[in-house]
Amino acid sequence: MRHVVIKNIPRAPHADAFQTLGVATVHEAQGRKGLLAPNMNPIYPGAHIAGPAVTVSIPPGDNWMIHVAIEQCQPGDVMVVAPTSHCEDGYFGDLLATLMQARGIKGLILDAGCRDIADLRAMGFPVWSKCVSAQGTVKETLGSVNIPVVCGGQIVNPGDMVVADDDGVVIVARSEADQVLGLSKARDEKEAGIRARYKKGELGLDMNNMRPRLADKGLVYLDSADDL
Amino acid sequence: MRHVVIKNIPRAPHADAFQTLGVATVHEAQGRKGLLAPNMNPIYPGAHIAGPAVTVSIPPGDNWMIHVAIEQCQPGDVMVVAPTSHCEDGYFGDLLATLMQARGIKGLILDAGCRDIADLRAMGFPVWSKCVSAQGTVKETLGSVNIPVVCGGQIVNPGDMVVADDDGVVIVARSEADQVLGLSKARDEKEAGIRARYKKGELGLDMNNMRPRLADKGLVYLDSADDL
Amino acid sequence: MRHVVIKNIPRAPHADAFQTLGVATVHEAQGRKGLLAPNMNPIYPGAHIAGPAVTVSIPPGDNWMIHVAIEQCQPGDVMVVAPTSHCEDGYFGDLLATLMQARGIKGLILDAGCRDIADLRAMGFPVWSKCVSAQGTVKETLGSVNIPVVCGGQIVNPGDMVVADDDGVVIVARSEADQVLGLSKARDEKEAGIRARYKKGELGLDMNNMRPRLADKGLVYLDSADDL
Amino acid sequence: MRHVVIKNIPRAPHADAFQTLGVATVHEAQGRKGLLAPNMNPIYPGAHIAGPAVTVSIPPGDNWMIHVAIEQCQPGDVMVVAPTSHCEDGYFGDLLATLMQARGIKGLILDAGCRDIADLRAMGFPVWSKCVSAQGTVKETLGSVNIPVVCGGQIVNPGDMVVADDDGVVIVARSEADQVLGLSKARDEKEAGIRARYKKGELGLDMNNMRPRLADKGLVYLDSADDL
Amino acid sequence: MRHVVIKNIPRAPHADAFQTLGVATVHEAQGRKGLLAPNMNPIYPGAHIAGPAVTVSIPPGDNWMIHVAIEQCQPGDVMVVAPTSHCEDGYFGDLLATLMQARGIKGLILDAGCRDIADLRAMGFPVWSKCVSAQGTVKETLGSVNIPVVCGGQIVNPGDMVVADDDGVVIVARSEADQVLGLSKARDEKEAGIRARYKKGELGLDMNNMRPRLADKGLVYLDSADDL
Amino acid sequence: MRHVVIKNIPRAPHADAFQTLGVATVHEAQGRKGLLAPNMNPIYPGAHIAGPAVTVSIPPGDNWMIHVAIEQCQPGDVMVVAPTSHCEDGYFGDLLATLMQARGIKGLILDAGCRDIADLRAMGFPVWSKCVSAQGTVKETLGSVNIPVVCGGQIVNPGDMVVADDDGVVIVARSEADQVLGLSKARDEKEAGIRARYKKGELGLDMNNMRPRLADKGLVYLDSADDL
Repeated sequence: MRHVVIKNIPRAPHADAFQTLGVATVHEAQGRKGLLAPNMNPIYPGAHIAGPAVTVSIPPGDNWMIHVAIEQCQPGDVMVVAPTSHCEDGYFGDLLATLMQARGIKGLILDAGCRDIADLRAMGFPVWSKCVSAQGTVKETLGSVNIPVVCGGQIVNPGDMVVADDDGVVIVARSEADQVLGLSKARDEKEAGIRARYKKGELGLDMNNMRPRLADKGLVYLDSADDL
Repeated sequence: MRHVVIKNIPRAPHADAFQTLGVATVHEAQGRKGLLAPNMNPIYPGAHIAGPAVTVSIPPGDNWMIHVAIEQCQPGDVMVVAPTSHCEDGYFGDLLATLMQARGIKGLILDAGCRDIADLRAMGFPVWSKCVSAQGTVKETLGSVNIPVVCGGQIVNPGDMVVADDDGVVIVARSEADQVLGLSKARDEKEAGIRARYKKGELGLDMNNMRPRLADKGLVYLDSADDL
Repeated sequence: MRHVVIKNIPRAPHADAFQTLGVATVHEAQGRKGLLAPNMNPIYPGAHIAGPAVTVSIPPGDNWMIHVAIEQCQPGDVMVVAPTSHCEDGYFGDLLATLMQARGIKGLILDAGCRDIADLRAMGFPVWSKCVSAQGTVKETLGSVNIPVVCGGQIVNPGDMVVADDDGVVIVARSEADQVLGLSKARDEKEAGIRARYKKGELGLDMNNMRPRLADKGLVYLDSADDL
Repeated sequence: MRHVVIKNIPRAPHADAFQTLGVATVHEAQGRKGLLAPNMNPIYPGAHIAGPAVTVSIPPGDNWMIHVAIEQCQPGDVMVVAPTSHCEDGYFGDLLATLMQARGIKGLILDAGCRDIADLRAMGFPVWSKCVSAQGTVKETLGSVNIPVVCGGQIVNPGDMVVADDDGVVIVARSEADQVLGLSKARDEKEAGIRARYKKGELGLDMNNMRPRLADKGLVYLDSADDL
Repeated sequence: MRHVVIKNIPRAPHADAFQTLGVATVHEAQGRKGLLAPNMNPIYPGAHIAGPAVTVSIPPGDNWMIHVAIEQCQPGDVMVVAPTSHCEDGYFGDLLATLMQARGIKGLILDAGCRDIADLRAMGFPVWSKCVSAQGTVKETLGSVNIPVVCGGQIVNPGDMVVADDDGVVIVARSEADQVLGLSKARDEKEAGIRARYKKGELGLDMNNMRPRLADKGLVYLDSADDL
Repeated sequence: MRHVVIKNIPRAPHADAFQTLGVATVHEAQGRKGLLAPNMNPIYPGAHIAGPAVTVSIPPGDNWMIHVAIEQCQPGDVMVVAPTSHCEDGYFGDLLATLMQARGIKGLILDAGCRDIADLRAMGFPVWSKCVSAQGTVKETLGSVNIPVVCGGQIVNPGDMVVADDDGVVIVARSEADQVLGLSKARDEKEAGIRARYKKGELGLDMNNMRPRLADKGLVYLDSADDL
């Protein structure tokens, strides 16, 4: 039951490449796993980041360990903070954001509340949190840094790749980053081709030859409701 | 229990006129009915559309029928998609939006989750949904197109007029579109007059002669809390 | 059980000064009390107001007393409206906002639903409400003006200072406005100093000499997960 | 927009037979449709009823039409009440239950709040509602009886068969009652056979020959986690 | 901002009489006010208590002040505990219940979580809470006893009468206890008469002569749906 | 991304001893960790079980892997089932319960919906689930057995001790079962002593000598509200 800080963690590669990919694309590409719960929303629209996770297991209502974790971050990291029990307090605001931005941390995934929203938007430091709350926290109790945590209903291991955009947050296991990047890019390219054809108005029914399968399953076309 | 596509539906008239009217105005004008549940929100602020409904009854976690429904849409239609049981999956993203925009469909009302929010905002294709979720769907199971559906707690019949703005979504029965349009316009004009007087600071108490009725009901004015 | 309007109330001072302070700062400065529930959100981002409360106790589904209350407001006031039982109807829209803006009222705190969101955003009249709903209300039943109300789970007394921004809404008791203003400013100044040091990347661990206390509590640093 | 009472409705047959069948069984048998939302719960455990629906479309906060609808009920009917907009008021208590029980009505499905829970439990009049609330309603506004309503997210037509137990409420379309009863009974009998074998501990893996299909899909058995 | 314990409070009279009255009856009798939010539920069915409130304002996650408040209770009191911000921790279990029962306290109204449910049910100590949670609290921070609190969205003043049953909790202002008791009894007697007639199957339509008023408002009776 | 069944897992000891301990006691004894989310409730009151976890990671809407997992259970085990994304379908009913009971499995922890509640109560097979739903699932897609899962927001490893009662569910790490059992028993014994003194009405204020610490922190006793 001791509290620890793991100082050196292996980090998932390819942050720059993942940052060009949407959360939905990566989630599909890796077989629909690793998506945080849909209540983990960005505090302002338009942010899109990717980077390896520095994980923080933190007591309810106490943000002390965020200070400890900042020191363990490298430029480009994404901090992932999960309280050990349900908490909607505002763990994080513009002061800590100033420090994190100064040290090159890309953003924060916070399974709790965030505050100073207007300031964070103005300074461009993105946070994905489950609520907004002005109610602050104390600095009394220890937690741990860089151990596995449950955030938004998913296990996040230190060094996993975090991708976050307006759709939410997806976690890619560090050991699978290479493979998932490849699959995601392939998916993106395939979608580019589809998009070009859709732009011209070509139906998915035709492009993917869906009509025979629909008929096989028993879909019936009627001229009007009178034929029901 | 068969699955059908009704190809020809009568469509409510006056889409252009309805598009100039707010959801709240139309809802009041038709006697406070037809409003979808308040969790049906636009995925970005500022969109305002109106058009006849092409309805889609769809299985949970399966968006195949959206492809089928697109073919049945005319330019100016609004698609209304309702799963047969509660589902928060992300049925809809930028690819399908590209095709729907190409074919002149004005927007989507989706009693489930939406994804690729940033792309949809950038391309200006509005969706009203009950959540945002990157978790996609499959294409395995049939549903029906242009049958009555329950969306946001209301019955929507094919061809009904859909009006949607930042306040939510209201449905006008096709057979009542003429009448409701007239009532809505009348309400809008009446409100314009009220607005002009309110802008000068004239009280509703005076404008509507409320004071006697308030006194009748027993409202008491006291100089201060000491008189309680 | 009679319904009353208290015409003269003492008002908390220092609205202009409070308007420069964030909700989170004020909430901390006054000992973490007075914060309305986190579901009381601004209808558009970026608004920030402060002013003394004119309180309105109002029946569910009936907005008549808002008309009564407007007459009791002075320029610079903030109206606080709380239904006597849970209600999500849209009590308030652009017409009443036009009148309130004309009379110099700064904004509205509404423990119910708001509508005409697009218009309110365009005209710059801020509302903090617990939901958006196009469903209107009637004008049949009395309530009271300038009595204590429960709004967002907190008691609000007439004349209390209301501060609202993107983080939510905090209430400062009128009798404590002087003291809380002082404490808030002091906090703001202290934070300015911290911010300057954080901008340079100085760790909170060092700035606040946290390391010995962390060690005392038993925090253990490990070189890697292999040492667990 | 007029309000009507349809006095004569055709009623689904086989109430007694349906009352011996569980909601889950009927729902499966009819292809997983017609299930009301899972927040429609019995106010006390152990009730199990079936009967044709008398439907009531009712304004928010107003239970007048329940009086009107009682007269239209026959012994054995189940009343289905749905407000036209979201409402959690306590529409129904022990007085109305006394009358409904006296007239042979079997129970109530109420998409709103219920009260006098202790009395209803004591007298054995079952209600499925979405909440318990002591807050009563008025008798001011009309609705309609025996028109299609949306209850618990599903369309209920007058005369449809309602089956309700501890698992919730399922609606069987009147025209499908014969067929669904047959399918449900067949399912029940099949389950009785399965249950007998399960009671002896026979695995579903063996009884349904699942092992080859699991292997085909790629399931791998490992002796221990060390083999991962 | 100091924390106080008010030792002597005036208490509302007539607890024994109120205990024979249902929450719904009292709520109606006093004009539909004072009802706590519907998420304040009994932890087991069948309890019914009434008594004057000893109020406790308590920090989130800290139950220390319950110890302080117990000393201030007289036999027959009901304790009302409200955290100063949203908290779902389990503040209360069988140990404190043992002490409270020993001192004659009738029950607890707790705007937070409760635990040891099985023990509390076995010993017959009723609690109305907003959730069940095994997660305990600490004893570090002060609150106040016998000051006004907000519990379940309502103001509760020390000494107010609390009535609680399976329907929820209603608060009667101390100064109105006499009047409300009279009104509640009158309502109960009137309902007894109605109940007797309902038991014989007499319709409310006839008993209250509703038919002319329904016709006036425009209700139309049709023989069948074909006449629509 | 393969799906596996781990056939042999080490199991936490002391199930019989843990079964005599309450969830709240164990949770406190192990330092307030391992408690599943408070929405994981028993489907009927009074059940109390303990046993080692057989964990099941399962797709949304598909209960096939429960069949696979049953074979891996030993008498006395508790099955823990967690979908890979949010799902409220009814994964489990009386048929599977019959088989599980026949094979000596003590109960089920299910982060989804349960059905056939009345049957499960009658046969005495306890389930803790997050909702009740009659909507069943399919058998199409693989998951894994005896890998770490996230259930109710907590990581559960195969073989961990599960303790469940009316208060919810707590997980004890297998490696800590010895230590936590000792701490829990010690706590239980200590509480027995406290309970005996509380039964006589002795105040916690005196028993734990709280008065000086309360005074130190600044608690003020006033004779009446007039002294405020």
